[in-house]
Amino acid sequence: MNVAFIGLGKMGIGMAHNLLRAGHKLTIYNRTPGKAAELEAAGARSARTPEEAAAGAEIAFSMLADDRAVEAVVFGKNGLAAGLSEKAIHASSSTISIALSKQLDSEHASRGQRYVSAPVFGRPEAAEAKKLLVILGGKSDEVDAVQPLAEAIGRQTFVVGAEAWQANALKLAGNFMIGSMLESFAEAFALMRKANVDVHDFLAVMLELFGSPVYRTYGTNAADRNFDPAGFALRLGLKDVSLVLDAGRELQAPMPIASVVRDQLTAAMAHGQGELDLSSLSLVAARNAGLD
Amino acid sequence: MNVAFIGLGKMGIGMAHNLLRAGHKLTIYNRTPGKAAELEAAGARSARTPEEAAAGAEIAFSMLADDRAVEAVVFGKNGLAAGLSEKAIHASSSTISIALSKQLDSEHASRGQRYVSAPVFGRPEAAEAKKLLVILGGKSDEVDAVQPLAEAIGRQTFVVGAEAWQANALKLAGNFMIGSMLESFAEAFALMRKANVDVHDFLAVMLELFGSPVYRTYGTNAADRNFDPAGFALRLGLKDVSLVLDAGRELQAPMPIASVVRDQLTAAMAHGQGELDLSSLSLVAARNAGLD
Amino acid sequence: MNVAFIGLGKMGIGMAHNLLRAGHKLTIYNRTPGKAAELEAAGARSARTPEEAAAGAEIAFSMLADDRAVEAVVFGKNGLAAGLSEKAIHASSSTISIALSKQLDSEHASRGQRYVSAPVFGRPEAAEAKKLLVILGGKSDEVDAVQPLAEAIGRQTFVVGAEAWQANALKLAGNFMIGSMLESFAEAFALMRKANVDVHDFLAVMLELFGSPVYRTYGTNAADRNFDPAGFALRLGLKDVSLVLDAGRELQAPMPIASVVRDQLTAAMAHGQGELDLSSLSLVAARNAGLD
Amino acid sequence: MNVAFIGLGKMGIGMAHNLLRAGHKLTIYNRTPGKAAELEAAGARSARTPEEAAAGAEIAFSMLADDRAVEAVVFGKNGLAAGLSEKAIHASSSTISIALSKQLDSEHASRGQRYVSAPVFGRPEAAEAKKLLVILGGKSDEVDAVQPLAEAIGRQTFVVGAEAWQANALKLAGNFMIGSMLESFAEAFALMRKANVDVHDFLAVMLELFGSPVYRTYGTNAADRNFDPAGFALRLGLKDVSLVLDAGRELQAPMPIASVVRDQLTAAMAHGQGELDLSSLSLVAARNAGLD
Repeated sequence: MNVAFIGLGKMGIGMAHNLLRAGHKLTIYNRTPGKAAELEAAGARSARTPEEAAAGAEIAFSMLADDRAVEAVVFGKNGLAAGLSEKAIHASSSTISIALSKQLDSEHASRGQRYVSAPVFGRPEAAEAKKLLVILGGKSDEVDAVQPLAEAIGRQTFVVGAEAWQANALKLAGNFMIGSMLESFAEAFALMRKANVDVHDFLAVMLELFGSPVYRTYGTNAADRNFDPAGFALRLGLKDVSLVLDAGRELQAPMPIASVVRDQLTAAMAHGQGELDLSSLSLVAARNAGLD
Repeated sequence: MNVAFIGLGKMGIGMAHNLLRAGHKLTIYNRTPGKAAELEAAGARSARTPEEAAAGAEIAFSMLADDRAVEAVVFGKNGLAAGLSEKAIHASSSTISIALSKQLDSEHASRGQRYVSAPVFGRPEAAEAKKLLVILGGKSDEVDAVQPLAEAIGRQTFVVGAEAWQANALKLAGNFMIGSMLESFAEAFALMRKANVDVHDFLAVMLELFGSPVYRTYGTNAADRNFDPAGFALRLGLKDVSLVLDAGRELQAPMPIASVVRDQLTAAMAHGQGELDLSSLSLVAARNAGLD
Repeated sequence: MNVAFIGLGKMGIGMAHNLLRAGHKLTIYNRTPGKAAELEAAGARSARTPEEAAAGAEIAFSMLADDRAVEAVVFGKNGLAAGLSEKAIHASSSTISIALSKQLDSEHASRGQRYVSAPVFGRPEAAEAKKLLVILGGKSDEVDAVQPLAEAIGRQTFVVGAEAWQANALKLAGNFMIGSMLESFAEAFALMRKANVDVHDFLAVMLELFGSPVYRTYGTNAADRNFDPAGFALRLGLKDVSLVLDAGRELQAPMPIASVVRDQLTAAMAHGQGELDLSSLSLVAARNAGLD
Repeated sequence: MNVAFIGLGKMGIGMAHNLLRAGHKLTIYNRTPGKAAELEAAGARSARTPEEAAAGAEIAFSMLADDRAVEAVVFGKNGLAAGLSEKAIHASSSTISIALSKQLDSEHASRGQRYVSAPVFGRPEAAEAKKLLVILGGKSDEVDAVQPLAEAIGRQTFVVGAEAWQANALKLAGNFMIGSMLESFAEAFALMRKANVDVHDFLAVMLELFGSPVYRTYGTNAADRNFDPAGFALRLGLKDVSLVLDAGRELQAPMPIASVVRDQLTAAMAHGQGELDLSSLSLVAARNAGLD
């Protein structure tokens, strides 16, 4: 299939590789061109603009940092929307707001283009290893068309609703679950330290109790203070929990734990932790307990 | 070994069975005698009071609902402390406050008795199947003496500190992690329902993402509204999160997520959910979202 | 002075009257023309568009519901910005986001126009009675120019910063103080009811203790369940607390109580209270306590 | 009337003085005797134990720091309960738990003694100046008997319920209102500082808006960082908000703002602020915003 891929960050680069490995013809675009080299070596063709990348693609993926980046890439000058053919599909994998997802849906429709939400769960290692979980939202024809590509980048695909934005809502709720776990670890770690219990002892019990690789990854990062370089930057975690709270406001569902996570992440930002790993959230509870 | 076991509730019954199966000589006591029959059939001897049960035991386990029950059984008339021999060990598996654990420590010491905290993680099925995680806190001699019995009732044992109460602190922090997970599910489920996403779809993604049996058990109970009979009664969950907050106050470690969980559990109590399963906590977020 | 006034809602109508009473020449505009009649009777001239209203004005006030309304009135077709003369001042009294205030500042500057933030505290009765508190933010020349009009609509004027958006930040923080007071009343009232203490008895003590007319107005509304018609609609309270949290995120200042207020207001929205008075927030705490 | 007064702390000393000024015959007791001298000079008689102080009194007031102190003074060796005559009344002005108030009620009843809750609102200056608000709870006969003394120590008396503990519930709810106001100021101040708005400017607007002397006292303390010596020690504020949350748990009324205040006060304790004035709570929000 002719596929475009726009956004070669930590996540996008692995996803693009796996699309190539699955035998698709890939045209890539990134704002900063450096990252394209290894993909070109693997057979991808580089485009100079999103518009050029999207032209000729049956499906154009985008994987970008936030709403603003998606708006710029899709609707900006020489944007994806300008290049995408009628009937071609924009598969948006970025973690974005419900509001923007709805807007993408209607704007693409108004151009005769099609739109699928395809957010993913997993960190960069999982993207590289084709272990992402891919969530698909959209009309069933569009979803069916994207499914083979979803299978090329992930270990499992979930179809969750006929409206594209529902996939975004699910993605945001899932990221909230991770943020909540991290803040819970943070509070428990602080308590353990004040009780003179080694946080690694506590972590060992929790890993045995929960038996979860996600707990292992984030819990170990937090216990080892392995914050830099970031697997997932804290400022993006704040972006996500803010989006889930926006969703909660829009859908009229209060989320008090999400509010706590947002408050604590804001404190982390105020202490200059924006570019550290999300697991550095644990420093906030520690500081409030008078530690460090 | 001569072992006493006091408290044959949902958890205690399985633990006592496994002590018998491991070949120990078991004397049992329960406030309501009915539950003793099956253990007697398996070889246990019933005592009429905690004092009588503890007399002659090298190690006396207690597994009771809360601080008040432990105080009554240990220090009440014909209590465990009155019967326990010098040098014999009280192994307390109940989820109790740090304050009571410290008091047990000093009171037993003043009688020449010894004390180990031995709280456990796991639901009644795990107790039955010898799959508990056992946390041991206390002086190393005492802990060494209890270790074989811990291995008889659990799948893994963790020694966490030279002070018995440290094991209680860890147990409370662990229960907090479960309570936090449940409230997080509750909020995410409410959001999903307002987004017209099936909570079972969301749950399926979370189970694949986290890969945790604990998420499976509680998440499925919450999604299926499988609240009655309770595996773990909601009112006990409120007791535990209140204890962890008391610990946080005592140790000067703020725990804002624990506070949210406590608030929501209090709302659940106000709606008559005290005897439902802890996973019915999800009803609070649903109600606040205008659902049901 | 030639003054324009755009936005004749509950607040604007009183402010406009007081500008007339102070002897200014007033041109008015409202999206729904009905409200203009009484002002015309008092000497105001009606314009057909914001552009027309602003044309010829030395100072053009706007008093609108939210960011969206301000954007539409100022930058929309036939908008205020199109009509305002060079050097003329837009005095924005709406409760808006810091982000929009900054944008207004730069957009007006780019047109050679001037901009002052002039948010107010007070309910419609206070607007009518010239009892508003007026907060002025902006460069000192602009602020000096607006000051006489501020004095015509309020009982006291406060100049708070050389950047217009600082006045908006202060206004949002002040509305947060009111929202926090209301949720505190809500929780205390629920506790009192569960304790069989009459909320009016509790209120009487609080009114004597705090001695505050604001406590009297909102506390009495809440105790008397005087929610309809709304003096200040609950949905606008949610807008404001969301804006203060956005400000907190932007400025990196966590506000956990604001988060609680937002969560509770969201629950109120989910129960259809958006058009009731803000004091109906008290119903949320009552419901969570199992009351009503 | 023959009156006993036990507890000559910052509050008690002023109350005792006013009872003397009203012409009552006063017997006083304090754990540390130094404070008695000025009252003796004004005509009071010192007793060596609470028992001795209570003997012969028609009404015995107690004004102590917390539950533990009340238990010690009332039920300890040579305690108030041992000395109080049948039919005589214990008027308890301490801010204590509902649970202890109920226990005092039943214990006094079992001795043929009578019991009234008489908690007060006001800081030491108000106690000195006879400006306290006195809340009375208990059976109407007992309340009637205490009323003249309540009038001697306060500017207004409120009778709130036939059960003594209801007055304690109201007192706790009132202290919660003050704690909530302080944390709200703390968050708003932090936001203002991040917005480069002088907190005194913000405070000036709030004082004009709310018009409340309580806002003036606490808000000014917080803005001026006037924390030492403490008018009301922060650790006592934590005690009070913990008691109100215990009451909320007991009465099944969730209080999420009280939870936030408790969390923040716990953070303040962890930073060594226990003996500073309650208004130093504002340091927590400031620290979390990266200030100071």
